[in-house]
Parts: sequence; C-alpha cells; structure tokens
Amino acid sequence: MKILMINPNTSTEMTDRMIATAQSVLAPDTELIAHTATRGFPYIASRAEAMIAGNITLEMLAEHHHGCDAAVIAAFGDPSLIAARELFEIPITAMAEAAILTSCMLGERFAMLTFSRTLVAWYEDAVALAGLTHRCAAIRVPDVSFKSVSTVQYELENEIVALAERTVKEDGADVLILAGAPLAGLAQRIAHRSPVPLVDPLVAAVSQAQTLARMKPKAASAGRFARPGPKVTVGLPQSLADWIEHRGPDRQSDLTLNASM
Amino acid sequence: MKILMINPNTSTEMTDRMIATAQSVLAPDTELIAHTATRGFPYIASRAEAMIAGNITLEMLAEHHHGCDAAVIAAFGDPSLIAARELFEIPITAMAEAAILTSCMLGERFAMLTFSRTLVAWYEDAVALAGLTHRCAAIRVPDVSFKSVSTVQYELENEIVALAERTVKEDGADVLILAGAPLAGLAQRIAHRSPVPLVDPLVAAVSQAQTLARMKPKAASAGRFARPGPKVTVGLPQSLADWIEHRGPDRQSDLTLNASM
Amino acid sequence: MKILMINPNTSTEMTDRMIATAQSVLAPDTELIAHTATRGFPYIASRAEAMIAGNITLEMLAEHHHGCDAAVIAAFGDPSLIAARELFEIPITAMAEAAILTSCMLGERFAMLTFSRTLVAWYEDAVALAGLTHRCAAIRVPDVSFKSVSTVQYELENEIVALAERTVKEDGADVLILAGAPLAGLAQRIAHRSPVPLVDPLVAAVSQAQTLARMKPKAASAGRFARPGPKVTVGLPQSLADWIEHRGPDRQSDLTLNASM
Amino acid sequence: MKILMINPNTSTEMTDRMIATAQSVLAPDTELIAHTATRGFPYIASRAEAMIAGNITLEMLAEHHHGCDAAVIAAFGDPSLIAARELFEIPITAMAEAAILTSCMLGERFAMLTFSRTLVAWYEDAVALAGLTHRCAAIRVPDVSFKSVSTVQYELENEIVALAERTVKEDGADVLILAGAPLAGLAQRIAHRSPVPLVDPLVAAVSQAQTLARMKPKAASAGRFARPGPKVTVGLPQSLADWIEHRGPDRQSDLTLNASM
Amino acid sequence: MKILMINPNTSTEMTDRMIATAQSVLAPDTELIAHTATRGFPYIASRAEAMIAGNITLEMLAEHHHGCDAAVIAAFGDPSLIAARELFEIPITAMAEAAILTSCMLGERFAMLTFSRTLVAWYEDAVALAGLTHRCAAIRVPDVSFKSVSTVQYELENEIVALAERTVKEDGADVLILAGAPLAGLAQRIAHRSPVPLVDPLVAAVSQAQTLARMKPKAASAGRFARPGPKVTVGLPQSLADWIEHRGPDRQSDLTLNASM
Amino acid sequence: MKILMINPNTSTEMTDRMIATAQSVLAPDTELIAHTATRGFPYIASRAEAMIAGNITLEMLAEHHHGCDAAVIAAFGDPSLIAARELFEIPITAMAEAAILTSCMLGERFAMLTFSRTLVAWYEDAVALAGLTHRCAAIRVPDVSFKSVSTVQYELENEIVALAERTVKEDGADVLILAGAPLAGLAQRIAHRSPVPLVDPLVAAVSQAQTLARMKPKAASAGRFARPGPKVTVGLPQSLADWIEHRGPDRQSDLTLNASM
Repeated sequence: MKILMINPNTSTEMTDRMIATAQSVLAPDTELIAHTATRGFPYIASRAEAMIAGNITLEMLAEHHHGCDAAVIAAFGDPSLIAARELFEIPITAMAEAAILTSCMLGERFAMLTFSRTLVAWYEDAVALAGLTHRCAAIRVPDVSFKSVSTVQYELENEIVALAERTVKEDGADVLILAGAPLAGLAQRIAHRSPVPLVDPLVAAVSQAQTLARMKPKAASAGRFARPGPKVTVGLPQSLADWIEHRGPDRQSDLTLNASM
Repeated sequence: MKILMINPNTSTEMTDRMIATAQSVLAPDTELIAHTATRGFPYIASRAEAMIAGNITLEMLAEHHHGCDAAVIAAFGDPSLIAARELFEIPITAMAEAAILTSCMLGERFAMLTFSRTLVAWYEDAVALAGLTHRCAAIRVPDVSFKSVSTVQYELENEIVALAERTVKEDGADVLILAGAPLAGLAQRIAHRSPVPLVDPLVAAVSQAQTLARMKPKAASAGRFARPGPKVTVGLPQSLADWIEHRGPDRQSDLTLNASM
Repeated sequence: MKILMINPNTSTEMTDRMIATAQSVLAPDTELIAHTATRGFPYIASRAEAMIAGNITLEMLAEHHHGCDAAVIAAFGDPSLIAARELFEIPITAMAEAAILTSCMLGERFAMLTFSRTLVAWYEDAVALAGLTHRCAAIRVPDVSFKSVSTVQYELENEIVALAERTVKEDGADVLILAGAPLAGLAQRIAHRSPVPLVDPLVAAVSQAQTLARMKPKAASAGRFARPGPKVTVGLPQSLADWIEHRGPDRQSDLTLNASM
Repeated sequence: MKILMINPNTSTEMTDRMIATAQSVLAPDTELIAHTATRGFPYIASRAEAMIAGNITLEMLAEHHHGCDAAVIAAFGDPSLIAARELFEIPITAMAEAAILTSCMLGERFAMLTFSRTLVAWYEDAVALAGLTHRCAAIRVPDVSFKSVSTVQYELENEIVALAERTVKEDGADVLILAGAPLAGLAQRIAHRSPVPLVDPLVAAVSQAQTLARMKPKAASAGRFARPGPKVTVGLPQSLADWIEHRGPDRQSDLTLNASM
Repeated sequence: MKILMINPNTSTEMTDRMIATAQSVLAPDTELIAHTATRGFPYIASRAEAMIAGNITLEMLAEHHHGCDAAVIAAFGDPSLIAARELFEIPITAMAEAAILTSCMLGERFAMLTFSRTLVAWYEDAVALAGLTHRCAAIRVPDVSFKSVSTVQYELENEIVALAERTVKEDGADVLILAGAPLAGLAQRIAHRSPVPLVDPLVAAVSQAQTLARMKPKAASAGRFARPGPKVTVGLPQSLADWIEHRGPDRQSDLTLNASM
Repeated sequence: MKILMINPNTSTEMTDRMIATAQSVLAPDTELIAHTATRGFPYIASRAEAMIAGNITLEMLAEHHHGCDAAVIAAFGDPSLIAARELFEIPITAMAEAAILTSCMLGERFAMLTFSRTLVAWYEDAVALAGLTHRCAAIRVPDVSFKSVSTVQYELENEIVALAERTVKEDGADVLILAGAPLAGLAQRIAHRSPVPLVDPLVAAVSQAQTLARMKPKAASAGRFARPGPKVTVGLPQSLADWIEHRGPDRQSDLTLNASM
C-alpha cells in the first residue's frame, strides 16, 4: 500500500528524520511517499501558524493524494486534520490524534512531554479535539531552553528522561507521548530509561495510517465527512481549486458549480 | 471608537446587509469599518472552507487592523478566531461565540436555527469551542430547500418561525440564535413571532466588540494570547508576513527573527 | 436607556464606589439608577447570606424595576439571578456571570482573584451556574488578612498584583477576574501591572446590561424564563406580592390567582 | 432519635400527608417532628418561589432545630439545602437530593416523573446540584392537566403509571422518582404497576436523615460547611438573626460580631 | 430485617472486625449475617484481584442470598456490584458506592484517605462508576509503609489524622472517606481529631442496605437490572449455575434454557 | 509476530468465524493463535456473564500468553480488559475498545449497531470505559428478533443495513460499529450498502494488536499497569495462580509472596 506523508513545515531535514523513524513500523508491503511544504514556517509552533500551515497542508494533499491509500499529516497538533477529512476520500491520520488514541490502549491516562511552553496551548487543543482531555494527565515541558529544533531531542534527552519519571509519579501517567515532530525517533532511543511505555507520535500516525488503509473503509457519502459537492472558488491555488470544483486531471468539468452552498 | 468588520466571504452584498443590520446597536461614538474578502468562497459552508477562509481572515486583519479598537470576524463559525486572538493585540469577536455568550444571559439553554444541514458540523464545533455544548439544546434546520443564500432569510422566514416554536417546545430552548451570516437582520424582523428572545449573531458580535473596546483590556504579555515574538516566514502574503516578522509600516525590522520557535 | 443597579448589601459606601467605577463604560445615552439594600448584611460573604440577600434583591427589583431597560445585580455571586430572570421581564445581569462570559472573549481560561477564603465556595457555584467550570483555571486568594472590606482593595493591592503573576504562570490563566464587589475599581488601577487582561465584574455587569438593553430582546412567553402567571402569596412584602400576584400600581387585579401552580 | 421535618409550603394538609407517608420507614426509636411554613406559598412551583421559600426554611430551621438529630427539608427542589448545611450543624437532607442518591443504588439511570411542566426547570437544577445530570435519563410529565395539588396524585395515577412504562422503554430509566411533594405516598400505592423500582422522595429524605443521624457525623469545623462565625445582621427575623449572630436562647452574646466577613 | 454481608476476602479476622463496626448503626430489628470467601486472596488489592474476587462474590451471593432483605458486598472497590445487581433481586450495596453517596449529603466534595498507593487505581474506578469523579477532591495515601493489613489502621492512625487535615486544606474536601476494608472502625476512633465529618464505608454500606431494605423496592422486570431469563452455563459452580439457569433449591427446572441470549 | 486471540465464549464455531474474518488484515509476518473457552457461556450477553467470562479470560491468558507479542480479547464488551492489562506484560486489545478508538479516526461520532437489546447496557459500559460516551451518537438495535447467534448476521442483514441508514440520518453518526462477536465479518459483506464507513470490531482488535506489537512498547514498571508483585492466592486455577505468585514454568519460586498487598 502507498502511504502519503505530508510535512507542513518547510524543513526537509525534519522530513528525512521522520522517514527514518517510520521505518521500524512499516509493513513489508508499505511504500511511504513524503512531501515537504515549500511555503509557511520552518517549524510551526502556534495555533496561528497551524492555521496558516493547515491551508498549505490542504494544498499539498490536493496535489499529492491521488493514488495513495492513506495520508499522514506529519505535524503534532494536526493542522487541518478535520478539514482534510472533509475534503478528501482516503483515510487521513495525524500525529497528535494517532498518538493519543494509541496511548489509550497502553494505559488509562497519558501525558505529553514536549520541549517548549509555546506549544502547550496548541497541544491542549489536539487533546480536546479527540475528546480525551479527561484522560490526559498532564502536558509537561522541561524547565530548560535549547538551541535548535533540529537538535532539541539530543539537547534535552536527559531532561526528558527525568521529566518522564516525575510525570508518572506526580501526575499519574501510565503512558507518555513525546510530543512534537522534532522529537520523532527519541522514544525508541530512551524507551529503556522510562518507567512506562513511550509513544512516538510519528510512529503512531504512520502505524494507524497503515491500519486504516488495510481496513479499506468506504468513503462516506453522508455524515460529517462526506465529500462536498463541486463549489465555486476564487483565487485559490490550482490543485486545491481543481479538487474543490471537482475537476479531473484534465482540468475540465461538466459539473454545475455551486456558488454558495 | 473604531470597530473593524472582516467579512471572510467574497460577497459584498452580504457585507452591505451586515453593515445595515449592525446600525441598530452602534453607539453614537462608534465607527464601523467593513472589508470583504477578495479570495476564497462566495459563501463559506464547511470546516474545510472555513480553514481556507480563516487564512484569508488573518491576512485581512494584518492589513486592516491598525488603528482599530476591536475587530469582528463576520462569519458564523468564527474562522480563525483563536489564531487571530493569538496574533493580534486588539479585542476580536466573532459571530458564533458572541451569539452563544450573549444568549447565556438571556436563557439557560440556547438553540441554533439555521438554513442548511451542511452547516451543522461547523456550528457544532463553534459551540464546543466555547465549551458550552451542555447549554446548547439543539441545532435545527427547516426541512425545505432554498434558492440562494442572498434571499434565504426571506424564502425560509415562515419555516424558521415555525421551527422556533417547535425548538422551544421539543428541545427546551430558552433563547434562539439565528445562525449564519445570510440570516443577519432576520431576528429583528421576526422577533414578535417568537416565544423566546432571538439573538442575531452579527448584532451580538458587533455589540460585544463595542463592549470589549470600551473596557480597553490590556493586551496580554503572557498566557495563551500573548503575541508571539518575530518569526521567519516563507512565501506568505506581504502584510501577514510583516506582522508575523514584527516589521513596521516601513517594512524594516531590527529584530532577530526566530527561525523555529 | 435606564439601567437599574441593585446593591443587595446594606453598605451605601459600596454603592457609591460601584457607581463611580461604572462611569468609564457608560454610553452617553445611559442613565444608571442605583439602590442599596436596607435589610440583610453589610457585606454578603457566604451562600447562606446570599440566599437571604437574594430574597431582598427580589423585593428591591419588584419595587424599582418599572421603567428600566435592564437591571444589574451588583454582587459577585449573583444572588437571585435565576429567580429574578424568572420573575421579571427586563434583561438582568449580575457581576459573576457577566465577568465570566466577558472573560471568555479575552482568553481561553479565566481565573478569579479575591480577598477571602470564605468567598470561594460561593464563587465556585457562580462558575458552575454558568456551566464554565472547565474554563476556570483557579480561584485564588492572597495569604494575608485585611482590616475592612471598605479598604481591602488598597490593603491587598500589592498582594493581588503578585498573585496575578503567579496565577498566570502556575494555573495557566489567560485573563483574570478581580472578584467581589469590594474590589470594584481595582482592575483599572492595576491593569498596567498585570501580564494578562483584568476584568472588573461591576464594569462587565454594567457593560453587558447595556449590551442587552440595546438589543431589546423580547421577553419570553415560553421556556424557563417566561413570567409565571398570577399566584397567591402569604405574608410577603407588598411590592413583591403585588408583582407575583400580577397586580398593577393601583394594587387591583382582575386576574384569578392560582393557589397552587 | 429526633428528626425535624420542615415543610416550606404553607399547606398543613401536605404536611399531614408527608407525616403519614414517612411512617413506613421510621425506625422504632425515631420521633418525627413536623413544622409547616406560615408565610410564602401554598405550594412552591418555581425557582423564584423556591428562593423566597428557602429563606423561610432558614428561619424555620433557626427556630426549631435545637435538640434535633437531623432535619429534612420537605420540598422536592430542596430550597435552601446548601445554605442550611452552611448555617446549621446537624445533618440535613432534602427530598430531591435524597431521592437522587438513593436511586443511584437501585439503578444506573433514574428518571423523574412529575405532574406539571412548570416544575421541570427547578427539578433539573436539583439534579445538576447533585452533579448527576448524566445519570438522569429524563424528567417527564403526563400530557394532561389536573385540578388541585391536593388530589393530583389520584387524578393522574393512571397517567403516571403509563408514563412510567414509557420512560423505562424510551429513555432507558432503571428507577423512577415520583417527584414533587404532592406525590408523597403515591409510590407505595402504584409500585406493583411499575416495571422498575419507584422512589418516594419524602421516604428517601426521611430514611437518609435517619441514616445520617445514626452515623452521628461530627459537625465540620473547616471546609465548605463549617458554621460561619458571628456576624452582624440588619432587620432579619429574630430567631435567624440570633443564630447568625451566635446568640444563645437568652439572646445574649459575648462574641464580637463581624461587620463584613 | 436480614442483611447479608459478603466478605470477598478470605480473612475471617477482617469479617469479625466489620461485624463489630457495623453494630453502631444496626437498627434493633436488623439481623446481620456474614460470610467470608474461602477462595481468592487474603486481601484484594487490585482490579485484577477484584475481577477474580468478584466472581467469588457472585458465587457466595448465589448460595447465601435466599431469605435476605438486602446484601452488602463488604469490600471497598465493590467487586461485582453491577453484576450482582443484574443477577439478584434484593437490594445490594457495596462499601465504596455507599460511602460516596452518603458523603454527598455531608459535603460538596469528598476525598478518600487510604493506606496503599496500589489501591488508588481501583478506588478511582469506583468513583467513576458512581459518576461522581467531579465531586472527588482527592484520593490520598500517607507516605509511610505498614506491616500488615490487620493492624494498618493502628499503625497509620496518626499519619491518617495528619493527612485528613492536609486534604481538607489543600484539596478542598468537605468530608473524608476512610477507604478500604482494613480501615473499618477507624472513623469512629478518630472522628474527634478530624476537621470534617469522616465516613466509614462499612458503616455506610450497612446503613444504606438497611435504608433500601426498609423501602422494599420492587425488583425490576425491565431496564438494566431486570433479572435475565434462564440461560445455559458450562462448568460453573453449582449454586451460581442453579441461579443462572433458574433452578429452584430442588435443582429441577421446567424452563427452557437459552443457549445464547 | 504472534498474536494470541482469546474467545471467552465456549463456541468454537464463533472462533472459526473470527479467525476467517481476521485474515483480511493480517500482515504477512503475523501468526494468529486462537483459543476458545471451555467453561462459561456459549455466548456472553450481560455484564454478569462478562464478569464470569472475564475470570475465564484471565485463566486463558495466564495459560497461553507466553511467547506471544500481543493478545486480543475476542468479545465485544471487553471482559477483563483492564484486569488483563494489569496482570500481563504484552499489549492486549479487545473488540469494543479497538473498534471505538479506530472509529475516532474515521469520523467524529460513531454509533453501534447490534442485534439484541440485552447487550446495550454492557456496550454502554465499554464506551464509558474508553471515556468516549460524548462521541457515541447511539447504540441501536433492529426491532426484530432472530433465531440464533450463529446466523444472526444473515438473519438481520437487511434490517441492519436499513438501521445504518437511519442511524446516520437521525443520530448524526459518521461511522458505524457492527457490535458483538456474532457480527464478525458482516461489515465486509455490507460495506457497499452503507452511507458511512463500517468498523468490524474483530478486524479492529486484531489490527490494533498488530499495531501495538509492531511498536514494541516497553512493559510498565510503574503506573496503573505495572505488573503486581508476587502474591498469595487461595484455590485459584493452577496457571493463574502460578502467574500471580510469579512462579515460572517449573512451578518453583524463590520470591517471598505477599499475603496482603
């Protein structure tokens, strides 16, 4: 099966690391196809940035999803996840949601460990979106700064291990999510130093994308996630406009566009 | 005081109607400045469209908010409300949130009446965002179709009056929100035919923008809504990039941009 | 428009201070009419006292609400708010509810800062009544005592500023409510020393009363807040009995009183 | 043990019926002492009336609770229950709360059957106060009118039996509360016609008062229900003023009254 | 009336102590009949053990409940409470649920004090089962170890008294439950040293069993707790198989067993 | 990898069908090992039966889990899921939980369709255990009876298809779970007749067991799911007693058993 991985950040280095991290859970018959954003932010770190990058995510999906069996939005915080599920017909997973739901099979309360205070409001929203705030024991951040998101998982490795210990003890977490794309791969490296299972969100998102792809769920023709009919757009990027206006690859359409609803 | 009204739809006819509707609650010292989107959709009707239009909202706010005392996002469903509050420093209201909170002073449970099933998931999200799902008695839609969003409030007037009656009786609503920008102005016209108070979301949003502007709340320098520091952007529209990179009107900046966080 | 302000405490000094505080948000066309309780307690400080003062609030409203466009119950904790909305037909706001709902447009989680532990249970109830316990980050009190409710806002000014800082940091509050009538006016004085917006509940209640009055909501004839029909009373104060028995100013009534329901 | 029963309605006929209904669950060593309100309403039927009657309840408790082991507020809707627990030191139960908590041991979801739509908002509040809204399957009312609260339990007997059947089937109730003082005694009469257990709230309240009295819980000296210190009152009824000002039966006090807190 | 007390632990010493503790709340006409498990664990301390002991509880109830008016499952954590209520027709109480519901009449928020961290997850489940997590201020454990469950209530007496004080102050508890069968009897001994009422769960469970027995609730013939029809079993203990297959004491049955549903 | 599938029902026919259904999602490197209960019930259909079968599940896991990478409890309702996760160290999934969590990636609200009213209370508990009651749109059952659990999925096929349509329309479900082991395999057969994706719980449980096994989560040494220390048991089946007492395959142990905690 083909899994499309969309990195809505502009850092290709991050994409490379995520591809590497995903290998451990790829089934033999899985092909992973990755794309990196060319507009936006090197690293999304707020809800305003996620709104902007979410738009870019939709454009990237419109362009690249054809022929894929499932897609992964490879940013924790899940920019455009709901919008993408509305628009597209293949299963779509994202890092925060996949990590949260997977954690729920490994413990009763999960906690998130991340590397910057700035991210917490955004990650809180992701927990709320899943409707699982009551199972989230805490979202915690080490009290130290770091130099770069590229190296943060090495810089803070010991602090995160120490924080894991405290979070289990003080907050009653049964499982820990290492939250944020820059931490992809860390879980595997420090699992043996943690008192509870660690969940790598990229691993969870790619795993769950494979799970859904293998189940071959029928695209909804009703409910909240049925694809909307063809609709007029003004000034949108070509591939996104084509998809929303239900134009095929030949950019022609016999359909009557709906100007309002 | 100056209130900025952003219509994230591309319909200027809708903007005009909203300006007219707002007059009844403008204080003598209020100036209302309205702008209409030039990209996007004639009328936003889903969460995917709200994601795209939300982006455009941020661009419009970046361009027009200077010198205003408060801003109104004039779409029910509140595209980019949280992102806008994160980025900008003036008070910002939006139609769904303002209608919901205002309703809570007029009754215990509010209901929403709107004109298309398509809108319901989006409006449910707005209720959830306010954290008031438990006070929402219902979101109901008449079982009839309509020709155009421009005239829907006239086409469905009698159906909405009948639905108001039933929603009070069957769902236990104490107050009704006429939801969706195309219904702006309807509440005033049919108030005498409703058993409970009606809330016009545009009226609520403009009223609450004035309320907040008059209270002159200090912009947050901490918490979830403190303005982020200057940050590198790639390929964003000029006015939005300027604001995010903390550049003044002269497009120069002495600040060191943060490439990642 | 005419806004009636009911102070259910017996302190006229407090009423005076509240009148002064309200000035900053009165629109040019607003007249504020204030009344002070003549029975009850100098300062209500518990739920039992609020029950007693709530009764007195109803009597005061029955006597003074004629000809007013909206009323404000000027005590944080909102004695008789629901009962008053049931009985009377003009919009009614109260300090806690108005502060809470207004805060929800300025941040995601609000906290309350007040001056005595005794008040906390009562204020918790007000948050629960609004259905917004999950958006309340904390209700905190400085660990110092004070001499008098008349001067407490001066006595504890520095402690409250320090507590504001800690509440934002430790509890994740985005906006702070300075809770309790004796703190009316303090927000304006210390706003510049707070990292997040401060909400003055008296200011919020008077602002929202104006907002509602300007919207001219129709009185409910159905739902939880429709005025009950005329009903027999035994031994109640004259003005309240008159209103409940639906007697006009001439104290005559043609209506058949309902002895039981 | 001595159980004090306060009827906050002015109907002595209702008091008599409640005394008769309580007999079936009185332990041999229990003495039941009943008092009827002399001011207020023949029958409380709304939250505004409950606010007024709640005040009268406090006065009656102040006058009669001395020497009793527990008290019952004999009105469904529980006027002044929280205030009474704050002020007084003996255990206090009330009809709605006792019925709700008792029901939770007989089924997973309870429903309430009552006789007038008017009562529903008030009873909803009682469920919310217990924090058990999620275990309340429904509050239902037969679609027929009645002549008098004195005879309503006979007038609507068959309708209530039919409604019981439907509520179990349609709402998933496991246990039914026959709500409202005018229904006291009905449960016993129709139990054999119901598919699930019926709870008589007066029986529940008297039973639970005995339960608490037998457990002899220490009065709280801390927490939300510690008795407040002596406090100045203005113009309150003598017995209530005496109790709040901590004056003994001789109406003398050595204590310094607190004018504000 | 006859109250059956089932101790699902194998310790007869514990049974004896519980019988002794129950005396203080037995009505003159109550006979308490106690049985101790002969299989399982000396003392259940986890959810896995409660699952195993819950099974044994069902077997003991099947064997001993005939002729009793109500039964008490005498383990905090309430093994098999729901299953027992499904299978049997007499009222059944259990220690955690009874303590929690009783506490709700003595304060707004209860807390649990117990003696081992191991127990906390199990007790959390009991609070969740009652649907009252939001009224549970805390579940706390002294930071000291103990030698034996037989003597733990004496070993930790002072630590629990100190913890009571802290839990009231730090967690806002209004009433404290001394949780776990090994603490039966302790509440009575230390009540005078606690700032808030203490609830002994065994006392509560026996009290509530008497309350329910005196109310004589009809067994449900519909809803979640109607006794299932006769059903085929394979290899179950005789008394439990007999009850499930609806065989009388003569072990004969005319009924057609249902092989599947 | 080796996945152990435990069928806690005694029907081997059901086990065979579940093995067949699982094939479509087994990865090439997965070996599925299935065991069927030899005691208990042909088909578990209530919470009392799930309590009994849950015990048998623990015994079967104790006997068969050695050498497996993950286990599946193959009954919807998830008997002993929490207890099993406490006792054993490999990842364990179960049908209801896996179906619920998987559904959350395919829609916002899921509904369950099943074949007997009897099952509903049990399935409600499973939703509550996942903490996702608010995302469950409905649990619905066709209004027709059936002859046998072996053939029910064929007997009710058309009724379930019709109910799917109604549940999407009337309850707002975005995804449907065909709940109950007797429906295993049905989803695949009727997917093309449903307006929204269908989830087969057995498929979900086996898929998620593979997902977890591939992630190789470290067994917890702290938190709610750390394996308890060795503990004395009385009269339990050998394999379960061995595991709880930490005896190896040679049935010898050097460990000191804990008699109480």
